[in-house]
Amino acid sequence: MNRKQFLKTSALAGASLLAVKPVLSAVGSERKEKLRLGFIGVGARGQSHVEECAKRNDVEIVAFADPDEAWAIKSGQLILENTGRPEAVVYANGDYDYLNLLKRTDIDAVFISTPWEWHVTQGIASVRAGKRVAMEVCGAMDIQECWDIVNAVEETGVPIMMMENVCYRRDVMAVMNMVKQGLFGELIHLQGGYQHDLRGVKLNDGKSPYGKGVEFGKGGFSESKWRTVHSVYRNGELYPTHGLGPVAMMANVNRGNRLVSLVSMASKSRGLHDYIVANGGENHANAKVNFKLGDVVTTLISTSNGETIMLSHDTNLPRPYSLNFRVQGTKGLWMDDLNKLLIEGVTESHQWTADAAFMEKYDHPLWKKYSKEAEQAGHGGMDFFVINDFIECTKKNEPYPMDVYDMATWYAITPLSERSIEQGSAPQEIPDFTRGKWMWK
Amino acid sequence: MNRKQFLKTSALAGASLLAVKPVLSAVGSERKEKLRLGFIGVGARGQSHVEECAKRNDVEIVAFADPDEAWAIKSGQLILENTGRPEAVVYANGDYDYLNLLKRTDIDAVFISTPWEWHVTQGIASVRAGKRVAMEVCGAMDIQECWDIVNAVEETGVPIMMMENVCYRRDVMAVMNMVKQGLFGELIHLQGGYQHDLRGVKLNDGKSPYGKGVEFGKGGFSESKWRTVHSVYRNGELYPTHGLGPVAMMANVNRGNRLVSLVSMASKSRGLHDYIVANGGENHANAKVNFKLGDVVTTLISTSNGETIMLSHDTNLPRPYSLNFRVQGTKGLWMDDLNKLLIEGVTESHQWTADAAFMEKYDHPLWKKYSKEAEQAGHGGMDFFVINDFIECTKKNEPYPMDVYDMATWYAITPLSERSIEQGSAPQEIPDFTRGKWMWK
Repeated sequence: MNRKQFLKTSALAGASLLAVKPVLSAVGSERKEKLRLGFIGVGARGQSHVEECAKRNDVEIVAFADPDEAWAIKSGQLILENTGRPEAVVYANGDYDYLNLLKRTDIDAVFISTPWEWHVTQGIASVRAGKRVAMEVCGAMDIQECWDIVNAVEETGVPIMMMENVCYRRDVMAVMNMVKQGLFGELIHLQGGYQHDLRGVKLNDGKSPYGKGVEFGKGGFSESKWRTVHSVYRNGELYPTHGLGPVAMMANVNRGNRLVSLVSMASKSRGLHDYIVANGGENHANAKVNFKLGDVVTTLISTSNGETIMLSHDTNLPRPYSLNFRVQGTKGLWMDDLNKLLIEGVTESHQWTADAAFMEKYDHPLWKKYSKEAEQAGHGGMDFFVINDFIECTKKNEPYPMDVYDMATWYAITPLSERSIEQGSAPQEIPDFTRGKWMWK
Repeated sequence: MNRKQFLKTSALAGASLLAVKPVLSAVGSERKEKLRLGFIGVGARGQSHVEECAKRNDVEIVAFADPDEAWAIKSGQLILENTGRPEAVVYANGDYDYLNLLKRTDIDAVFISTPWEWHVTQGIASVRAGKRVAMEVCGAMDIQECWDIVNAVEETGVPIMMMENVCYRRDVMAVMNMVKQGLFGELIHLQGGYQHDLRGVKLNDGKSPYGKGVEFGKGGFSESKWRTVHSVYRNGELYPTHGLGPVAMMANVNRGNRLVSLVSMASKSRGLHDYIVANGGENHANAKVNFKLGDVVTTLISTSNGETIMLSHDTNLPRPYSLNFRVQGTKGLWMDDLNKLLIEGVTESHQWTADAAFMEKYDHPLWKKYSKEAEQAGHGGMDFFVINDFIECTKKNEPYPMDVYDMATWYAITPLSERSIEQGSAPQEIPDFTRGKWMWK
């Protein structure tokens, strides 16, 4: 079976891989054989989506919107050229030209992969224009925008999928499988986070995305152009969804459970400044920048079912990459960093056991079958599966496995954690964006 | 060099192994060749102290106070008999007979190893009777008692040593050495905790300390007799010092730094109940007990120097033992569970490196030299070193490496975390028990 046949099979195409119950039912009943796609944002992340979509025979890539024509648009078009596809129509006339892309009647859905502060504004405009949305990860700028996008989806009936690719990580899906089969018993405590030394991403030489250098903002390139200012002005859990999304799905958040409150605490901020001094000298202009983001921000979240969730945001210090997962219940626990687990009555008590045999046994059948294909996609295959779920659910008019309520809930962690830190770690209530629908499990 | 000679050498006997600056100066100038010891509490922990002390030729073991004559006193006397020492004088006439032990004029110092709720009351009585105190670990019942014992020590000038044995753990001392030598740069975030499946300790058969069974309180034996009721009535970080003590010492807490505030969050409570049902049946009387202690209690602490400290208390679920240490600074981090670290410019960037070579290189010289002797002592050798520090500092009238301010600060975490949880994770100020002396570093 080749890739194209694979994508037509009902096994993968028929229903979401995550197999969780969505909050919002799908609207309408039109089924599409082929999707016509627009891309709002074709920077590094947008290009990776274009590349994945360009491999599929069930999509047309219609248009790109990005104010950066010289690099972003050009790179996107090159992908199309290399895959023998027609050029995309370009909307590069400033920050708001995406509104003209949204006026097109030949686009069914858009991928939004823009700087964080644009996500919600563009997502609302997209659903109001009748386009379904594949929404990239980040945290909200303010609680109100989480409500605004929920309202826009509810008013228009046009759904959004939250593109949390880590929910599709192979070990995460195996552990999800173990959770659902009760191996860990009743869940008690979960951990996740984003622990990634991004110093060489937030600061670069203005020419290459991971180039040495200590520039950012106007002098930076790719992510350092826009991502780094969030570290200058904001102190909080700025990037919650990679850590929270998977454990929230395991704990059935918004599906018979919900996030109730959080507290956050931030350490001092040293890492980015030290990096600038070490690599640019103490007289470099950026050595005077006062970065507000604490190097390690820890957030504790309580759920209505009584679990606790701990998130760790840690992006300014030298460290190995880790999403810090821990899944712990009444019958056992798994720790991502260790690749080890303990399951009562199954593995030796009081001892860690390597998780490899469990990852094999509880591996998702489609991961096993298509691991080779998937692993050619971005982020170790996760991107292949998350994009496939978006495309297939959209084509079949089926509900997305992660919807606007998940997006709002996960995004909300950021402004709430900022407020908690501002208030000396005071607890913050997490809104129920489902307005009670989380109880309809 | 044999053990007795070793204990006479100035290398180990001369100054505290921890080599940290104490807050309180020693009082008086009398030097003793031999210490006369009393033991308040000769249960499991007290017996282990008696056993260690009985190996030394610089102590006399004068008296035991414990209301449990049948097992505790008898077991203590057996240790003395087996080591050819004279019987201890016994104070077993109820809970308050220790006050008569304290009236003796032939005792220089006492070890307090009693149920947690007795520590401070007995510690205050001891210093008011002029006896120095080796104080076992736990958390306070109330903030006031932390002040009371500080006041008693300040008023009498009789010091207390906080017997936090984990500060002497071999890897912890090596990491402390690395911290002091700047390998981690400026400290940013620290973690510790007490993660230990104590279900078989909190619940037993009333006959043996780790026997199968689901009894506690009057029907229990050893720790289950008194420790378990704390899980019935209290919800908080009940056992903070093993996790906090070592990282507090690394961060110079009370020595140029101090703990400022905390928040705590508790998960639901399931583990002990489930264990009772699984091992005693759902009709067992204890299956009706409502355990208040959350299975996982997480605490975030801020320091005046801007570090964050995360503690995890996790004693009711199946898991491997772990004190959860993480030591992270601007130049690298170490994780206890992994036995791995990253040191910028030394180990490979973005990768974990096994810590074995670093543990060897930064091993404390005395650990290297006396590892064999130490490892015959309790808790993998830690007990040997912590007892030795207490005995030697007392003999030489030198200040203790961990004093009453450390005790009060660490003990205070428990009632503050209980209060935080009661108040929905509201932040709690941590008192400055040194009354400003922490700035005299």
